[in-house]
Amino acid sequence: MEKIPINISILGSTGSVGTQTLEVVDQFKNQLKVVGLAAGGNLGLLQKQIKKYRPKVVSVKTEEDAKKLGVWWGDEGNCKVATVSQANKVVIATPGLAGIKPTLAAIRAKKTIALATKEVLVAAGQIVTQEAVKNKVEIVPIDSEHSAIFQSLQGREISEVARIILTASGGPFRGKKTKDLKNVRVEQALAHPNWKMGAKITIDSATLMNKGFEVIEAMWLFGVPLSKITVVVHPQSIIHSAVEFVDGSILAQLGPSDMRLPIQFALLYPGKREVNNFRRFSFSDFSTLSFEQPDIKTFRCLGLAYKAISVGKSAPAVLTAANDVAVEAFLAEKLPFWRIPDVVESTLDANHPQRYSSLEEILEVDAWARSLAAKFVVKFDS
Amino acid sequence: MEKIPINISILGSTGSVGTQTLEVVDQFKNQLKVVGLAAGGNLGLLQKQIKKYRPKVVSVKTEEDAKKLGVWWGDEGNCKVATVSQANKVVIATPGLAGIKPTLAAIRAKKTIALATKEVLVAAGQIVTQEAVKNKVEIVPIDSEHSAIFQSLQGREISEVARIILTASGGPFRGKKTKDLKNVRVEQALAHPNWKMGAKITIDSATLMNKGFEVIEAMWLFGVPLSKITVVVHPQSIIHSAVEFVDGSILAQLGPSDMRLPIQFALLYPGKREVNNFRRFSFSDFSTLSFEQPDIKTFRCLGLAYKAISVGKSAPAVLTAANDVAVEAFLAEKLPFWRIPDVVESTLDANHPQRYSSLEEILEVDAWARSLAAKFVVKFDS
Repeated sequence: MEKIPINISILGSTGSVGTQTLEVVDQFKNQLKVVGLAAGGNLGLLQKQIKKYRPKVVSVKTEEDAKKLGVWWGDEGNCKVATVSQANKVVIATPGLAGIKPTLAAIRAKKTIALATKEVLVAAGQIVTQEAVKNKVEIVPIDSEHSAIFQSLQGREISEVARIILTASGGPFRGKKTKDLKNVRVEQALAHPNWKMGAKITIDSATLMNKGFEVIEAMWLFGVPLSKITVVVHPQSIIHSAVEFVDGSILAQLGPSDMRLPIQFALLYPGKREVNNFRRFSFSDFSTLSFEQPDIKTFRCLGLAYKAISVGKSAPAVLTAANDVAVEAFLAEKLPFWRIPDVVESTLDANHPQRYSSLEEILEVDAWARSLAAKFVVKFDS
Repeated sequence: MEKIPINISILGSTGSVGTQTLEVVDQFKNQLKVVGLAAGGNLGLLQKQIKKYRPKVVSVKTEEDAKKLGVWWGDEGNCKVATVSQANKVVIATPGLAGIKPTLAAIRAKKTIALATKEVLVAAGQIVTQEAVKNKVEIVPIDSEHSAIFQSLQGREISEVARIILTASGGPFRGKKTKDLKNVRVEQALAHPNWKMGAKITIDSATLMNKGFEVIEAMWLFGVPLSKITVVVHPQSIIHSAVEFVDGSILAQLGPSDMRLPIQFALLYPGKREVNNFRRFSFSDFSTLSFEQPDIKTFRCLGLAYKAISVGKSAPAVLTAANDVAVEAFLAEKLPFWRIPDVVESTLDANHPQRYSSLEEILEVDAWARSLAAKFVVKFDS
């Protein structure tokens, strides 16, 4: 059991998960205390957070901003926030590969990890999970799907798992075919039917790449092979995911589509669940829950993720790098929506999958994939 | 952890739960061993079971049958089977109040209880659960609903529970109104849409009395008040029940409608889940799961159960006794289906609720309620 209060550091405190984490902290002032904050661009909001939570250590993205605020900056700053001695739990919500270094630093400093940043496991799953095992540190997922699986596994063993059932909302374009996706505008892709999330992950949800990343995350988090993970489209996003055990019994976690729930679970874990003032789910609000197979012919990114997994080695890192570039180009209106998988696939195909054993090697592969993907963006921008 | 093999005694071995229990035993011959069998009428089947499983102790219902087989009989025989020294787990599947004495005997002999007989908790919940606490004996439910709740609570505490959500199929007459139920024939009421069960419980499912009993059982098993238990009609019987925790997160147990699953769970508990050869659930087989409020205006038995609970004391015992008599009369074509609640209500209304502290007092109340209910059967047979 954790000591009360649980002292937390938050990396990515001004983003979607970061701000929702602080909303949870506000509800549990006696149990949760903020001791570290790191953020990227939104300096105004960060300053408000510093004033309100009075953390021991703060870090920003650039040296310039750091000088303005008199705080740490960059990778070194992130690692300071992740390892501040008072912290016993570190929330990793920094977007992209920037989350990997502080995660490794926090693990080595024996902090429990509450993990939101997908890239940490997608690109560096092997290094991160090995380090966690070595340091006997637990990684508690913040994603609603992985939190659902984590919750369903409470009191059971991985050897009892027959299958992990990852649910997917299907995103705003569920039911559409490739020809319908040719003229998708940015604001359409950003209109997620159920979840309030950042822009990047919302686009990834629209392409189903997000679900592909989640499959990879689940493999690393729970130590199960790809063959034991199934994706089911469930448009209402009420069943957040489920676990089928070897005896055929399935445990599922359900609830409102509110990220603060898995955040609260991760922050208070392994302590008791506590009452919050979030909206409750009622079966009468959702008289039907429906399920269907994902359409990987139209939403090719999910298939590409499966391909990257079966190739293994550096392929998942290439997948996330190329996707990053493609999504960024789409958001900047430099690439059509339906061309995102083309950029990813071409980059993946050009890759000679190599084993990696250090973060530096991953960063090298990432840089290579990004520069190549940028070329494919130009090629496919038509 | 239980020793392997787990030695089990089965009370009610020739009934629906009893025979399905033996089907589970057949799949786990190395883990499960039968050391006691008790049965009622089906002597031919019992003899086959004795030959196959070679139990240490056997009991039948009547002295006459006992003499034929050279075994124990009656209450004493049931208690012998429930307390045989080799047994470490006792399956209680004897219909009706006859299950109470052997349950108490098994608890006092420190055997883990795998409980199927509803009356044990509905009529004698207080005595039985007090005795279980006193003897540090765990009661593992075999009912699919209570097994679902039990499974959803693994690794959590009762203080974390906000609400228990009991699902109900709604039975064969879901959507019907009282006027539609005036000419229900026995075979219609016995045609349960999802579950393969005995005749009595199938009728109780058609009237929703079964769900009322389950609410009472849940109160005793999990130690929660009526206000924390909700009934939701879910016609597909895929979500077997769910628990909402104080943080708003819901855990639900799902699976095929196969009683052997909760039986297996109870028999192997707290050991690991094991692979069986039962049919698996697939979300694509059930593309929609639906939910609705129970219609307690038409299915008055559920409302009567709530009433009996809020009155408390002897009222639940009267409820089950009167219902027994009414259902038996319906099965014998001596009472119309829609009159079952009238018999139960009239008997309940005539009762002066009294506290009970012994099994003898419950049996007295039971006898009184049965004789009165029989009179109401004659009155309402029109």
